[in-house]
Amino acid sequence: MDLHGGNIYRIARERGVKDLLDYSANINPLGISEKLKERVANSWELFERYPDPHYIELRETLGKHSGVKKENIVVGNGATEVIFLYCKTVNPKKALIVMPTFAEYERALNTVGCQVDHFKLLESEDFKIDVDRLREELKKDYDLLIMCNPNNPTGKFIKLERMREVVAAARESNTKLMVDEAFIEFVEGDYTESVATLEEEHVFVVRALTKFFAIPGVRLGFGICNDMELLERIEAHREPWTVNTLAEISAKVLLEDEEYIERSKRWIESEKEYMYSGLSEGHKIKPYKTETNFILVKLLGGITAGELRDRMIDEGVVIRDASNFPFLGDKFIRLAVKGRETNSQVIERIVRVTNEAR
Amino acid sequence: MDLHGGNIYRIARERGVKDLLDYSANINPLGISEKLKERVANSWELFERYPDPHYIELRETLGKHSGVKKENIVVGNGATEVIFLYCKTVNPKKALIVMPTFAEYERALNTVGCQVDHFKLLESEDFKIDVDRLREELKKDYDLLIMCNPNNPTGKFIKLERMREVVAAARESNTKLMVDEAFIEFVEGDYTESVATLEEEHVFVVRALTKFFAIPGVRLGFGICNDMELLERIEAHREPWTVNTLAEISAKVLLEDEEYIERSKRWIESEKEYMYSGLSEGHKIKPYKTETNFILVKLLGGITAGELRDRMIDEGVVIRDASNFPFLGDKFIRLAVKGRETNSQVIERIVRVTNEAR
Repeated sequence: MDLHGGNIYRIARERGVKDLLDYSANINPLGISEKLKERVANSWELFERYPDPHYIELRETLGKHSGVKKENIVVGNGATEVIFLYCKTVNPKKALIVMPTFAEYERALNTVGCQVDHFKLLESEDFKIDVDRLREELKKDYDLLIMCNPNNPTGKFIKLERMREVVAAARESNTKLMVDEAFIEFVEGDYTESVATLEEEHVFVVRALTKFFAIPGVRLGFGICNDMELLERIEAHREPWTVNTLAEISAKVLLEDEEYIERSKRWIESEKEYMYSGLSEGHKIKPYKTETNFILVKLLGGITAGELRDRMIDEGVVIRDASNFPFLGDKFIRLAVKGRETNSQVIERIVRVTNEAR
Repeated sequence: MDLHGGNIYRIARERGVKDLLDYSANINPLGISEKLKERVANSWELFERYPDPHYIELRETLGKHSGVKKENIVVGNGATEVIFLYCKTVNPKKALIVMPTFAEYERALNTVGCQVDHFKLLESEDFKIDVDRLREELKKDYDLLIMCNPNNPTGKFIKLERMREVVAAARESNTKLMVDEAFIEFVEGDYTESVATLEEEHVFVVRALTKFFAIPGVRLGFGICNDMELLERIEAHREPWTVNTLAEISAKVLLEDEEYIERSKRWIESEKEYMYSGLSEGHKIKPYKTETNFILVKLLGGITAGELRDRMIDEGVVIRDASNFPFLGDKFIRLAVKGRETNSQVIERIVRVTNEAR
């Protein structure tokens, strides 16, 4: 089973089909900014040199747009490298992950031999976080707490006001906190709602341009850290030149592309509502309200997520079977929020197939 | 001090200059293939998806051109990732590196706490390898032998006939062998001279498209391995999606670009001779014969490599001070072999400056 969505290559290979609608990966459907394409066409000479091993300009750009100094930024080959680097450097003995969530946190912790416990978000609580319960749990001597906000796959966002309590609970229990904000650009208020604004030494924030700017093939992630001693140790663990030149150029061009950013925000605002209400029409499915560009859906009938995924491939759509997110069981799927035309097709097909299923 | 050449960014920042001739990095001066630029302009939609996490097509392409099966290929974010992955997975307790050479092997071994010894190539032997002496040294219970062939910074290549003896010596002493062939495309006979053709289980070959195809900003390296059990363990250590989409496209386009490959081979053949004979005119320098696209030069007068490097920046040229290659001392520089026009300028300036120095 694949750990992640987006592997439509294997599906296409195995089934011998092409032109599948990929609703398994959470990418901005506006696609790559035209400004980036133009800039690359005029900047090929930059690829003929090694990237700056200290990534000074890149870190300045990322810092400026995140409201932090370049000294507080560590860059990586996608958020994945940043997550692995952080876990390798902190080298926790015992960590707590808020679940269900993205699988790579646990994989990164496993590579350093860390004991991993899970703090479960409950379906009965609409997958919202209970800070009091978390505070109690943190008394059990954890070195590190990891969470994703907004959370993948639930689509729920904990606003800064609430996150202050989580940050305080971690501080009081002497626990480091890593927050993956890979989807924060989709949230109303975006960076002003980030825990990075709190500038706390025990908090490490992970970001990526991947999702919002539709560049998963480019590979650019970064971390924001206020613990300078830790940052130095992270840099010592980093292999040289892991961030490629296209990623450097992308940061510079995309973060300045106000028109793209505005269009994307308007799109997500309208389409997430459109999909939620369209899916709500289904008799045997329950969509969850989302603050991001993907939507969690519970299957209320007899069909499992795996069965629906197979049926939907016959319908030309790849959805994400969310049953490999631990604690979700086999009744949840995750859908990307994309453009209106395909959204309406996908809603129609899912509602029809689930209505007709047992 | 920088561990590597090519950091002209810092020099430009610190000195406030631009338009330096970069003779410190070993990149094909033909620059990036036009075919690659065209292909990227027509393939942006590929960047809007995650790369295939198993890199099936990429490994097929690399395997086909290296004469090995895709199952024997592991890909990485530049040769650097492959080197670090291999060292992490093999996890040797005691390793021997043939020196002087590229600094990252030792850095990779240091990250896994390996004891590192050095097998010194001698100036008195023209930096050629003495296999009998190596065979003796290998009796000291090494887990791993690392060498670069052709070797950076000496420019010397050990032909396959001779490498068979090295491979046999390693096998007899139960030592794994990692050979970095990042510059092999510049050598006459190229892949037919590779140790990968021997298909030995204890040999791991590192390759990169970086140097020959002038794409250091793209980041693509790979390893060739016949030990399938080891390869599986390497894959388990690999973080997902470390190879970006531009790297995937590059392999496909560049390895098929016969015209570029032919032009590059003709260029290197003529320019390496031109530079060798031009530099031989200097009274106070001694160039070494090279089989690659860089040339090691010994300073015979009173000036040190560091002093010459500083003087040459005033002349508008960045050279590589080779004194941070252990065992070379402070009297060696390394020059890239580039296009005729700048080669003749650089030769003239170096010969003049060293002739005039104390």
